[in-house]
This record gives sequence, C-alpha cells and structure tokens, in this order.
Amino acid sequence: MKISKLYGIGVGPGDPELLTLKAYEVLKKVDMIVAPRSGEGKRSLALRTIEQFIEERKENKPLILEPLFPMTKNEKELKSYWEKAKHEVLERRGGCETIAFITLGDPSLYSTFYKFLDFFEEEVEEVEIIPGVTSFSACSALAKVPIAEGHEIVSIIPDVKEDHTALRVIQNSDSLIFLKPKNTDAIKNMLGNKKAILGVKIGFEDQKLVLGKLTEIKEPTHYLSTLIIKKEDIGTEPRDSTRL
Amino acid sequence: MKISKLYGIGVGPGDPELLTLKAYEVLKKVDMIVAPRSGEGKRSLALRTIEQFIEERKENKPLILEPLFPMTKNEKELKSYWEKAKHEVLERRGGCETIAFITLGDPSLYSTFYKFLDFFEEEVEEVEIIPGVTSFSACSALAKVPIAEGHEIVSIIPDVKEDHTALRVIQNSDSLIFLKPKNTDAIKNMLGNKKAILGVKIGFEDQKLVLGKLTEIKEPTHYLSTLIIKKEDIGTEPRDSTRL
Repeated sequence: MKISKLYGIGVGPGDPELLTLKAYEVLKKVDMIVAPRSGEGKRSLALRTIEQFIEERKENKPLILEPLFPMTKNEKELKSYWEKAKHEVLERRGGCETIAFITLGDPSLYSTFYKFLDFFEEEVEEVEIIPGVTSFSACSALAKVPIAEGHEIVSIIPDVKEDHTALRVIQNSDSLIFLKPKNTDAIKNMLGNKKAILGVKIGFEDQKLVLGKLTEIKEPTHYLSTLIIKKEDIGTEPRDSTRL
Repeated sequence: MKISKLYGIGVGPGDPELLTLKAYEVLKKVDMIVAPRSGEGKRSLALRTIEQFIEERKENKPLILEPLFPMTKNEKELKSYWEKAKHEVLERRGGCETIAFITLGDPSLYSTFYKFLDFFEEEVEEVEIIPGVTSFSACSALAKVPIAEGHEIVSIIPDVKEDHTALRVIQNSDSLIFLKPKNTDAIKNMLGNKKAILGVKIGFEDQKLVLGKLTEIKEPTHYLSTLIIKKEDIGTEPRDSTRL
C-alpha cells in the first residue's frame, strides 16, 4: 500500500520558534519523521530544531528515522545512500501512513528534500511542501540590517568560484548572499573592502553574528554560515545591543 | 516615555498558517499593531493575514493602526506619509508599551519596515525583528519545483529594467526570481522560451499558480506576483494534482 501523504517541511534556520504554525501542526500528528544527517555519530540539525515538539507528543510518538547522507559530490555514492534511505523507510514504516521529511531552512533553496522526492515519489499518493524561514532572513533580522530595499538586485551564491559567471553576477548585484562560504579569500578578492554581515549557526543557541568590514572577517569554519555583503555602506554596529 | 519594544514582524506570504510560532506569540500579547496599507479604502494584506489571531484575543485587544503609504516613488511625498504615521502612533499610543509593525513576507527583502524604523528608532528602547516566509519560497512549495539545487546561482530582481546591470545578472544566474513583474515582455525578450512558474497572490484564498513556457505566460496584473524562471528545463505540470 502506498504512503498516503509525504510532507516536505522547512523547519527554518534552527530556532524552534521560527517554525511555521503549519509545520508545527503537521509534526504534531505525522506518523513518521525522516531527518537526514550528514555523518555517523552526528545528529540531524533539523531534528534538533523540532525535538521539543516531538517530546510534547505524549502518546502516539512518531517513528523517527535519521538516514545518513554524507557530504560527498560523488553522485554514484550519493545515489546508493538515497536508495538505502528509501529501503529503510519502506521496510520500517509498519502502519505509518504519513511521513514528514524535514530540512533546515526552506525546501526551495539547496535542500535535500527534492532529491528524496525523486527517489520516493512513486511510493506516495500525495505530496505537500511547507516552506520555511531561510538562514539569510534570520541573519538579517538579527543584524537588524535589510538585505535589499527598493530596486536593489540580490544574488544568492552557494559556492564561491572565481569564474566569469559568478564574477559577473557578483559585480552587477547590489547585495550578495554567500551560503556556507568556505573561501572568503576569494570573496575578498572580488569585493574588496565592503561592509559585511556574517552569521554562524544563526537560530541555534551558540549562534554568532559579526558585523564589520569584509576584510576584517575571519574565515568562517562552520558549514552553517551565511555571509551577506552590501555594496552600499551599512553600519558596522547592530542597531541596538542585542544578545550576541 | 519611550516605547519599550518595537517588533518588526514578517507575517509570511498571506496564508495565516505560514506565520512563525514566534510571530504568533508576539501578536497574542502586543499592545499595538501597525499595519501599512497602500491605498485609501484598501485593507492591509498583512493585517488580513493575521486577523484571525487578533480575533482570538478575547480580552485585552490590541490597538490597530493602518497608516497609509501610497505606492509613489516621490521620496518627499513618502517622507510626509512616514512622518504622519509616526505622529499618529505617538498620539494614539496611550498606555501601549509594545508595538508590532507587520509586513507581508520577510522584513529583510523589500519591506517597508526598515523605513518605519528609520523614522521611529529614537522613540523605542529595544527593537526585535522576526523573519518570515518569503513569497518565492511559498510559490516554489506550491509548484513543487525547487528554485535552486547544488551550485546554482539565484538572483532576485524586484524591478525589470533592460539595462546592462540587470542583463548581466540575468544572463549569468541559473535561476531568477522576479517580484511584482510589471513588464513580462522585457523578461521574455531577455530569456526567450524558458520554463517558468508564475504565482499570483500565493498564500491567499484566491491564489493562482501557472507552470509553463515563459512565452505562454500572460502579463500578471496583480502586484502580489512572483515569477520564477529556471534556465534548465522543469516539468510543465505540478508533480501531482494540487488545489490550484
């Protein structure tokens, strides 16, 4: 028998309070929760975000699966992990009729959900996707600095390469959002001494926000980093003293 | 006496269920709600999004103000409206100590909140911004098509002009998000026959979603429109039959 409904849920940047009411309602009643994690011994950050809501379910706890999806660019290897995850879900589902696949941030941008859907679509009768708050929205909110106003063009760059394509986008956008920037030296080479906001693990308890000149920002080490750069000058201090 | 706290709240794209838990909690207790509207006789769409939660507050209803901010590009004229709004809030606040300024979508992108903050900052002791779900995240979720995956570059263009800057961004991005596109002919000229998703009033009861070739998409007439264009081909049909 097919699974009656698969939800793809964006749980937001990591702060449980930034979950949507809709996601909250689904997580209160869904039979199974699938939460991808990136390494053995690691916990799923999406699951960590929602675990208090699962604990609140006194009866009728959902089945929780945390399939492993290592951060590899080897497509063949990744495919074997997806197939293993699908097999695990089907084997262990028992009487589960509804499944929620949870993902940090929002499913529309760089999420693993659509990969799961590609493998899993034939097993389900209905699919519903619930959007979530992105890390860059949360980062901007904490810094109290808008990403864009008026006619400003914003570009989101997930992976910094000094190629011509990226360079033309970077040169011609008013604001830039770099996700998981591993190579800030390359960004500094391209953008010089612009004002920047760096958020690391924004939404989590150990979040860190840095506002300053791009050249003064040290290499972010955590993969949950968001770097927002504005071509026009912004203040180097948050608008008021917040809990940073 | 200063206002103790000003919240800038993104209420999401229009579906009350896409409000965050945090925004919901604040709207349950805040003393005053400021909801901008774009014309005389028009209702604030942000206020429409949250009105059911205000109705749930049986006692201790908040004071609601709907200042007018007409869609004009005349900076001087706009400034007079902001000053009028500030004056109205201060004159009518009475014993209100906390204020929520609500905005559709997310405050970080093209929101009126930061303009309000510029005028109002000196009147408040503390500012907190609560991020929200964007219209493009909701549009992608409804279409069940991701905006970007892997290394794809996404650009957000709020206003279509056929200038060199915008053209270079458009040519070099993998996915494009046009907000309130008035001039789809210009976009068609630039992008040819790509696959596109057009969402009109996504999140509201009378939402409309169109998936198809860009050349087949008719001029959107509502200002709450989001046009997502992907350079690589996408399916022209939603992944399953949804309530469209």
